[in-house]
Amino acid sequence: MQIDALNRLINEFTKLPAVGKKTAERYAYFLLSCTEDEVHNFATSMIDAKTKIHYCKICANFTDKEICEVCARQNKEPIICVVKEPKDVESMQKVRDFNGSYHVLHGVINPLEGKGPNDINIRSLLTRISTEQIKEVIVATNPDVEGEATAIYIANLLKPLGVKVTRPAQGVAMGSELEYTDAVTLQKALTARREI
Amino acid sequence: MQIDALNRLINEFTKLPAVGKKTAERYAYFLLSCTEDEVHNFATSMIDAKTKIHYCKICANFTDKEICEVCARQNKEPIICVVKEPKDVESMQKVRDFNGSYHVLHGVINPLEGKGPNDINIRSLLTRISTEQIKEVIVATNPDVEGEATAIYIANLLKPLGVKVTRPAQGVAMGSELEYTDAVTLQKALTARREI
Repeated sequence: MQIDALNRLINEFTKLPAVGKKTAERYAYFLLSCTEDEVHNFATSMIDAKTKIHYCKICANFTDKEICEVCARQNKEPIICVVKEPKDVESMQKVRDFNGSYHVLHGVINPLEGKGPNDINIRSLLTRISTEQIKEVIVATNPDVEGEATAIYIANLLKPLGVKVTRPAQGVAMGSELEYTDAVTLQKALTARREI
Repeated sequence: MQIDALNRLINEFTKLPAVGKKTAERYAYFLLSCTEDEVHNFATSMIDAKTKIHYCKICANFTDKEICEVCARQNKEPIICVVKEPKDVESMQKVRDFNGSYHVLHGVINPLEGKGPNDINIRSLLTRISTEQIKEVIVATNPDVEGEATAIYIANLLKPLGVKVTRPAQGVAMGSELEYTDAVTLQKALTARREI
C-alpha cells in the first residue's frame, strides 16, 4: 500500500530478529487495530526501557541501577559465570543452585566478523578476579566454534592468575533421543562418560 | 530479571500476534542493543502510523488521506471486492487484472465471539451499491465457517437490490499436490470442474 507511515512502521518491524516482511506487516496491522492509548503505551515502554536500562558497572549485565541485583547480593560464592549475552544470564538463573555472579561479554571472538578479544568485555574480568578474590570462572559461552574459541582464549588468559577455569559439560541433552543426537555431541558425551 | 522497564517492554511485545514470552524477550533484548536514536525512531514510527492512518470514508481500508487511493481512482469497474481485513486488500491487489474497488468489513459474523452483522462494516456497503452503481460484489472473505456464513448473509442482503453477488472459486491451489489436499477442498474442486 502507498501509505508512507505504514511502510515506515513495517520497515521498523523487519529490523527485529527473525522478522520478515510478512510478519512485520502482521505486527503493523495489529498495531493499527489497537487504540491510540495502547500504541502510545507500547512506544513509551520502548523509550523507557532504552533510557532507564544500562550496563551494570561490575558484570555488564542489563540493570536499571548502578550495580545489578546479582552483583549487589551479599555472601556470593567466589565463582563467576561468563556468558555471551544478557539473555544468557536469564537462562543460567533458572539453575537454582548457582550462587556466584556473572560476567557478560556482549559478544564472542569472531574473526570473520572482525571481532577480536578487545571488542568484547574481557578486560574488566581480569580486574574482577583479584578484587573479588574469585576462585573459579565458568565459561558458559555457546558450544559452537566462536564460543569454544572464546572459552579457550579466556582460559589461557586466566590460568596464569591461578584461577580455576571450567566449562559446562557437553553431552546428550535430557529428554532427547540418541537417534537424533549429532555425531559430535555423541562423541563428546562418550569421551566424558561417567561410572554410574 | 527484576527490571521493571524491561518486563514492561517484554509484556508489550507479547501482545503482538503469535508472539510468546521467549520471542518477546528476544525482541526486547534486541531493542536494548540498538542505539537510543534507533529506538526513538521505532517508537515514533508507531505513534506516527497510529495518528496519521485511519479508515477511508468510502471503503474503510486504511489510508492517510480522507479517501484511499483505490477509491479516489477514476474509471474503476463497477465491481466491489468485499474483504475481512485491510491486509486482505493488500493480497488482492497482487491480482493485476482486478480494476474495481474494495470494501473492508473489519471482521466477519461470528456468533461464538458475539459478533453479529451490525458489528461489522456491512451497512455502508448497501449505500455504495446505489451511489456507485455497482454491478457486481465479489465476497472474498476467507473460505472458513465464519467467512462462508458472512458471504451468504451479504448475498441474501444484496440480491434484492439486483446486484450480482459472487465468491472466488474454491479448489486445488496452484502448485499444490492432490495427495495433501483435504477432502472438502477436493470435493469443491470436483463439483466446480471445467471442461478443458
